[in-house]
Amino acid sequence: MDKQQVQNWLEKRKKRRKDRSVAALFTDLTAGNRETLSTCITLVESTLPEDKKMANELIQMCLPFSGNTIRIGITGVPGVGKSTFIEAFGKVLVNKGMKVAILTIDPSSASSGGSILGDKTRMEELSVLESVFIRPSAAGTTLGGVARKTRESIFICEAAGFDIVLIETVGVGQSETMVHSMVDFFLLLMLAGAGDELQGIKRGIMEMADALVITKADGDNLQKAQLASQQYANALHLFPPKPSDWVAPSFTCSALNNDNIEAVWNTIDSFANKTKINGWFAKHRKIQDTYWLTETLKELILNAFFTDEEMLQNLKGMEAKVADGELSSFLAADHLYAIFEEKLKKND
Amino acid sequence: MDKQQVQNWLEKRKKRRKDRSVAALFTDLTAGNRETLSTCITLVESTLPEDKKMANELIQMCLPFSGNTIRIGITGVPGVGKSTFIEAFGKVLVNKGMKVAILTIDPSSASSGGSILGDKTRMEELSVLESVFIRPSAAGTTLGGVARKTRESIFICEAAGFDIVLIETVGVGQSETMVHSMVDFFLLLMLAGAGDELQGIKRGIMEMADALVITKADGDNLQKAQLASQQYANALHLFPPKPSDWVAPSFTCSALNNDNIEAVWNTIDSFANKTKINGWFAKHRKIQDTYWLTETLKELILNAFFTDEEMLQNLKGMEAKVADGELSSFLAADHLYAIFEEKLKKND
Repeated sequence: MDKQQVQNWLEKRKKRRKDRSVAALFTDLTAGNRETLSTCITLVESTLPEDKKMANELIQMCLPFSGNTIRIGITGVPGVGKSTFIEAFGKVLVNKGMKVAILTIDPSSASSGGSILGDKTRMEELSVLESVFIRPSAAGTTLGGVARKTRESIFICEAAGFDIVLIETVGVGQSETMVHSMVDFFLLLMLAGAGDELQGIKRGIMEMADALVITKADGDNLQKAQLASQQYANALHLFPPKPSDWVAPSFTCSALNNDNIEAVWNTIDSFANKTKINGWFAKHRKIQDTYWLTETLKELILNAFFTDEEMLQNLKGMEAKVADGELSSFLAADHLYAIFEEKLKKND
Repeated sequence: MDKQQVQNWLEKRKKRRKDRSVAALFTDLTAGNRETLSTCITLVESTLPEDKKMANELIQMCLPFSGNTIRIGITGVPGVGKSTFIEAFGKVLVNKGMKVAILTIDPSSASSGGSILGDKTRMEELSVLESVFIRPSAAGTTLGGVARKTRESIFICEAAGFDIVLIETVGVGQSETMVHSMVDFFLLLMLAGAGDELQGIKRGIMEMADALVITKADGDNLQKAQLASQQYANALHLFPPKPSDWVAPSFTCSALNNDNIEAVWNTIDSFANKTKINGWFAKHRKIQDTYWLTETLKELILNAFFTDEEMLQNLKGMEAKVADGELSSFLAADHLYAIFEEKLKKND
């Protein structure tokens, strides 16, 4: 870019965000402006203090729009056919007149600093639809940070008029727990014939699932998939009852033949109806809200130390002393905390 | 207790701890006084600020005694025969002239407030030996807190002259990662014939293991155990090489027949020799020390909020507002943090 282009870009960027009040952004967002939606999520993902402040105000305004949405988490190991499933599933929802937002939590983005999945290109047919919005994982230095931004983006999408928010994650590591803490319904995709160990699925994840779907139930694989589904259904019945009073079903589907994809939606719809009547749906969201209050608070408290250059320098010095065996890690932590406390008192 | 008894108990307690300087405790501890050892660990487990201060000073003095010890983590699901194995293994070590301390991390103690395992009664023959010290899990409100106290107790045991510190934990949940972060060698006990899923063993735990031992390899079970061991050995070879340059072996043992128990020690001894020569042993401890510095620091920083009655009251109020949908969790967290910051500045 030459100087003029840079200037134009900066102007445009300024026009997009800085110049506009939160109220103006909010008006355009709720009017369904797509560019504003992207701008708002970029605002949420920003680490600049003034952007964070704006984002918080914006999300506060978005709160009343969460009432009639359903947040769905989808997980499964690489190879299970997540994007193919989501493409087929998304089309079913769109055909029913729903607007669908798809957000991704990618654990690798916490270390690589960006999504490597390239979600938009994976879901070709879905991404061009007017009533679909796809956003790849936020970049971040910690999974917790990425998750927080995703959770904030949910509120933005809901205010933008999306009925369904899908949160997709890779079925390895800790990201499922994160996703589970921000969705109403948690869907686990599995392959037939691959042992649990091979699939890297932890027992705890099966217990979190509100439904288990065996993918790729077509052709030669159909019988194997049906058998696996039956076995999982038996296993799911053995788990202790959930506070939602919902027994997770297990079934097969084929995104290739478009078999049983609608059944997944019917299950989620039944779940929502049942738990809205028995009170769990609202209660669950409240539990999640207070959980996120504590998580966000912890992040703020720790950031006061871990984003302070001077304190990080002090930490480095102490690490060297601890590694040399000069100081115990406990005494070193005490020293560091004392320095930190002093600094906080002096700050204005 | 009547008033006089209470008085006596308080006097005794005072005599045990408060009256004695850290230096005096340290002298008795390193002289091998058993009662002092217990007193010192109780000091570490105390939540009183003055006790914490004393404990930190004490551990600092204990640091130089860590050089020639080996810290061994042992995990496996309930039913794998951990106590029976440890009893047999402990006797092998004692017969070789070693002093053995056994500490437990029990995830349930974080919620129940105390160990429910009653370790001492489980290891009858071991617990009466002069050169063995068994301490059940510290009580605590968080697994992190329990783990910190256990790690501090390791240094106390080492200064008391113990050559081997065994850290035992139940093979479910997050406690293995905690134990792994404080030991030199991580031993995973497994049963033959139970699928991974049944055993609740997560893939990640197998990757952490420095050796895998199939227990109860006796009678009808022997052949099945040997087959399982062979299969695991194959699987272990497929894992990426560890920074220790150690390939985790897999073998069977029978505590009942005292078969192959000594082989476990020989393996650990080989590991220690190899990694002391290639530098990993010392490097690994340094990595752990700096990890614990950060963990302890985080705990201190968060405790400033989460042990402050006034702030907890504020948190409760905000939780209600968030649950009522009045305030987003993010804005509520911001408010709370602002109040906290103000308070810290005013404190003297």
